[in-house]
Amino acid sequence: VRLRPRVLRDVAAVSTSTTVLGTPVASPVLAAPVGYLRLAHPQGEAAWAAGAAAAGALRVLSSRSSTRVADVAAVAPGAPWWFQVYIMRDRQLTAELVRRAVATGATALALTGDTPRLGSKRRGGVGLPPGAFMPDLAAGGDEDLREDPRAAQDPATTFADVGWLREISGVPVLVKGVLRGDDARACVDAGAAGVIVSNHGGRQLDGAVATADALAEVADAVAGEAEVYVDGGVRSGVDVLRALGLGARGVLVGRPLVWALAAGGAAGVRDLLTALGAELEEALALAGARSPADVGRDLVAPPG
Amino acid sequence: VRLRPRVLRDVAAVSTSTTVLGTPVASPVLAAPVGYLRLAHPQGEAAWAAGAAAAGALRVLSSRSSTRVADVAAVAPGAPWWFQVYIMRDRQLTAELVRRAVATGATALALTGDTPRLGSKRRGGVGLPPGAFMPDLAAGGDEDLREDPRAAQDPATTFADVGWLREISGVPVLVKGVLRGDDARACVDAGAAGVIVSNHGGRQLDGAVATADALAEVADAVAGEAEVYVDGGVRSGVDVLRALGLGARGVLVGRPLVWALAAGGAAGVRDLLTALGAELEEALALAGARSPADVGRDLVAPPG
Amino acid sequence: VRLRPRVLRDVAAVSTSTTVLGTPVASPVLAAPVGYLRLAHPQGEAAWAAGAAAAGALRVLSSRSSTRVADVAAVAPGAPWWFQVYIMRDRQLTAELVRRAVATGATALALTGDTPRLGSKRRGGVGLPPGAFMPDLAAGGDEDLREDPRAAQDPATTFADVGWLREISGVPVLVKGVLRGDDARACVDAGAAGVIVSNHGGRQLDGAVATADALAEVADAVAGEAEVYVDGGVRSGVDVLRALGLGARGVLVGRPLVWALAAGGAAGVRDLLTALGAELEEALALAGARSPADVGRDLVAPPG
Amino acid sequence: VRLRPRVLRDVAAVSTSTTVLGTPVASPVLAAPVGYLRLAHPQGEAAWAAGAAAAGALRVLSSRSSTRVADVAAVAPGAPWWFQVYIMRDRQLTAELVRRAVATGATALALTGDTPRLGSKRRGGVGLPPGAFMPDLAAGGDEDLREDPRAAQDPATTFADVGWLREISGVPVLVKGVLRGDDARACVDAGAAGVIVSNHGGRQLDGAVATADALAEVADAVAGEAEVYVDGGVRSGVDVLRALGLGARGVLVGRPLVWALAAGGAAGVRDLLTALGAELEEALALAGARSPADVGRDLVAPPG
Repeated sequence: VRLRPRVLRDVAAVSTSTTVLGTPVASPVLAAPVGYLRLAHPQGEAAWAAGAAAAGALRVLSSRSSTRVADVAAVAPGAPWWFQVYIMRDRQLTAELVRRAVATGATALALTGDTPRLGSKRRGGVGLPPGAFMPDLAAGGDEDLREDPRAAQDPATTFADVGWLREISGVPVLVKGVLRGDDARACVDAGAAGVIVSNHGGRQLDGAVATADALAEVADAVAGEAEVYVDGGVRSGVDVLRALGLGARGVLVGRPLVWALAAGGAAGVRDLLTALGAELEEALALAGARSPADVGRDLVAPPG
Repeated sequence: VRLRPRVLRDVAAVSTSTTVLGTPVASPVLAAPVGYLRLAHPQGEAAWAAGAAAAGALRVLSSRSSTRVADVAAVAPGAPWWFQVYIMRDRQLTAELVRRAVATGATALALTGDTPRLGSKRRGGVGLPPGAFMPDLAAGGDEDLREDPRAAQDPATTFADVGWLREISGVPVLVKGVLRGDDARACVDAGAAGVIVSNHGGRQLDGAVATADALAEVADAVAGEAEVYVDGGVRSGVDVLRALGLGARGVLVGRPLVWALAAGGAAGVRDLLTALGAELEEALALAGARSPADVGRDLVAPPG
Repeated sequence: VRLRPRVLRDVAAVSTSTTVLGTPVASPVLAAPVGYLRLAHPQGEAAWAAGAAAAGALRVLSSRSSTRVADVAAVAPGAPWWFQVYIMRDRQLTAELVRRAVATGATALALTGDTPRLGSKRRGGVGLPPGAFMPDLAAGGDEDLREDPRAAQDPATTFADVGWLREISGVPVLVKGVLRGDDARACVDAGAAGVIVSNHGGRQLDGAVATADALAEVADAVAGEAEVYVDGGVRSGVDVLRALGLGARGVLVGRPLVWALAAGGAAGVRDLLTALGAELEEALALAGARSPADVGRDLVAPPG
Repeated sequence: VRLRPRVLRDVAAVSTSTTVLGTPVASPVLAAPVGYLRLAHPQGEAAWAAGAAAAGALRVLSSRSSTRVADVAAVAPGAPWWFQVYIMRDRQLTAELVRRAVATGATALALTGDTPRLGSKRRGGVGLPPGAFMPDLAAGGDEDLREDPRAAQDPATTFADVGWLREISGVPVLVKGVLRGDDARACVDAGAAGVIVSNHGGRQLDGAVATADALAEVADAVAGEAEVYVDGGVRSGVDVLRALGLGARGVLVGRPLVWALAAGGAAGVRDLLTALGAELEEALALAGARSPADVGRDLVAPPG
């Protein structure tokens, strides 16, 4: 996707700030949900959340968190966050987890729609201590719900669950993993406030369409009715600009933040998010745009 | 060909089973016809057939079999199979072979349409014992029909032979090697029950169109009137899913099964077919499809 | 350019023979004009002509021949040949050379249209003996017309020269070097019997369109009114088939024949042309075509 | 971009001469503005200007010149030149510099439109002696305006500045850095006499469209109303021909001239421009064109 920068625009004052589902953020770069962050750093989700908050970024906490939701929320009071969720075979357990997240401060839910089951490429044990998986649900802290069938993902999750989640939580729901315009349409018709385009970094189904292609199709399908995000493939401020040009309201950054967390803890996460924001600010100026809202489809060249 | 997986579909129960020309099979993966399997393994076609049967797969026996048709049929009574045939210069010989195959249990014929002669890339002797070529026709077991002009392929084979084969055999006829929509149409008009898209693994005419391109064109040409198969290029369950998305009823796997036969005999063949079925089951689930019938052209992206 | 072979065609009798401007030839493969063949082999043009004649091929003698035209003609009496010509600054000299060629047996002229001057990539001395360049015009055999301004190519050559050549020679004229449909149209309007698509092997203007693209455009422009040939890029029988599919009546082979001449003299030229014919025969059969006339645009896939 | 050469055109007399904004030049190859040429050669801009004048080429002097404008003009009296300018935060300073350039002989201004700020890839100190930056403005010759905020580029530069520049200077204004048709249109509507397509050699915004694509779009947008130039990517006469075919009136050559300046001083610059002109002359002849004016869009192939 090539960019089509504009000339002779007044870019004396450029700002990366925007809103996501109405929440003001420093830049359209969000921290994506990633599971088991204690595998990357001893303070895991807590350090990751502190770094995101320090950069003024919204974070999306994974339901496969290896730290109690309340403990993560406590490190950055007032900083905005959403909660990623999947529907478990035991819906009561799902509802309990969701309600606890909302009570602790989550202002939206991101329902994972693209993993009716864990792809075989992603199975295999991870060396977590007992109780580190879903500690909110594991009574006593010495259970491991990874083997508990009640916490397994329900392969019968459907669009109807969007409405159910919204009802039990009272907060907006986004669907994560959408790669098609018709699916985005169906999500919105089912009550979703937004969709997150993602191909799971290629780790689920081999050979899925590229997120850039899917993003344009999805944005066209629900433009003006829902917010569209993209998760994956963002490595620079110019990548963020491309995504905005294709119709994204924001981008989610996952793996790079894990590396930053492993290398530098909360400060590493903060620095990487701040650097991406600075790169985006420069890219906006060089493209002749004053803000994310000033970026339109005209900034990206049609394929071919 | 990129895939366009769907989200939030109920895939609690996924099945790869389907029917091919009305015959129920465990998965749309068929064992392709390959000649002289005794070159790959001492039990040759017998071990290959046993492995396919154990996996619940339909097999297509080559008329260049190095084992008597009846001996192959005997190893897996009740397991479904088709017979691949070419028209010999001596039609009586052809008819005799076909009738023997049908009498032994073949429920359909696959007429090879793309080798009016053996391409020069494929000539050259193979070290078979005497009588190993077409032992059904070689009286006494010590003749070698490879040099017999009566058994040579008739370069004057035409669409009319589809009707002739159907008449003398009483079973449905598929044409193998089709790469064009107009040819598929002509096959069906001549009475074919299906066509098998194939470019002979590139070993016949250099520079022929890719099977993926041909498959889409052929499927469009005869959709709803005949079953379309594709032979070649399938190495994973995702490849099978792609073929189904492009319009195939099933796929034929050739060379990988020869390798599996050489390495592991009947068990090797069974294990490879079973593994492809399991991969297809996962690919279906991750793509949001419950069965082969649930796969449509919408699952594959238009060429970009 | 991918091929779209047909199935179930009667190819019991395949022939590569065709006619070029009405002259019967063994195959649509012609020997292209190449200058100074005595640089490749002591018998130069004579050996080249003998080899082409032995293969039943038409040859196109270069006006930059290093052997007298009459001497070349004498080695293969009755074998068909055309004469390649360029317009010299001295038109009398041009006319003299052309008339001598026609008197000696040339049945058509190929006017080089794409070299108003020798590109700088192609300049530089070649180690020919005195009188080896245009010996027909060099009186006494000890002159070298390469330095003679009268024999230099006239950069003011235009479409009008097609008519002039036809008038002074009485034989059909083809224009060589055409890469555009509008130019082909202009050639035919100026009286040309055919055009030869060529980009001079990339040795003239860098970055010119590929001959395959130009061939299709040129064939579309003058279909049915003039014969279209292509010079360059043919290395196999499948390449010849591709050219026929794109609309060529025949193909000219240059450099490979020089290598064959250098390595094997007349026999080398004969063997290469015979081998190309045999490859074409096989390619025709495998594509389901009985003859060059049986090849249509449907045999080549539209660009993807 | 592939070329579509014409045949049988009278190219006995080929000339590369043309006019740029009405000024006659030896060829459509112009010397592009490059800053701080004393970093490449002790005589810097003076040697560069002398070389361009000796080749009959128009030069575009950078406002980041490391030599006084009057000193540059003095080395080649009568030779045509334009002045590249950016709008400084101190408009008085800008106006003073522009008026000085016009008084010294500049016949047009090239307003840089694509660098509202220096991209981070291009920052970093350069080892110039004191006073070498904008010596026209640095009183006493020992100041360095690179650190002076008054001389910094104004990020609030807009289309309105085209009119302002034209008014204070009395000479035509071109806008440099245009990559879009709508921007070209806006430039012309704002009073620009031309636009210069450029992506700053990829050193500003990563991932911008290729100049060849932008050139065609820009030329289509303002054809017949303004002159279009392209800066960047020209390394040969065939490259110049391509640009003319895509709609350019001329091309600007930057970095290759810096290398020639460093290696050979004024003579190096002259020789490179002369060589490019000779290559263009040959390319014109081989393409069947007599002059730059004879080159149309038909000479370049549509993208395939």
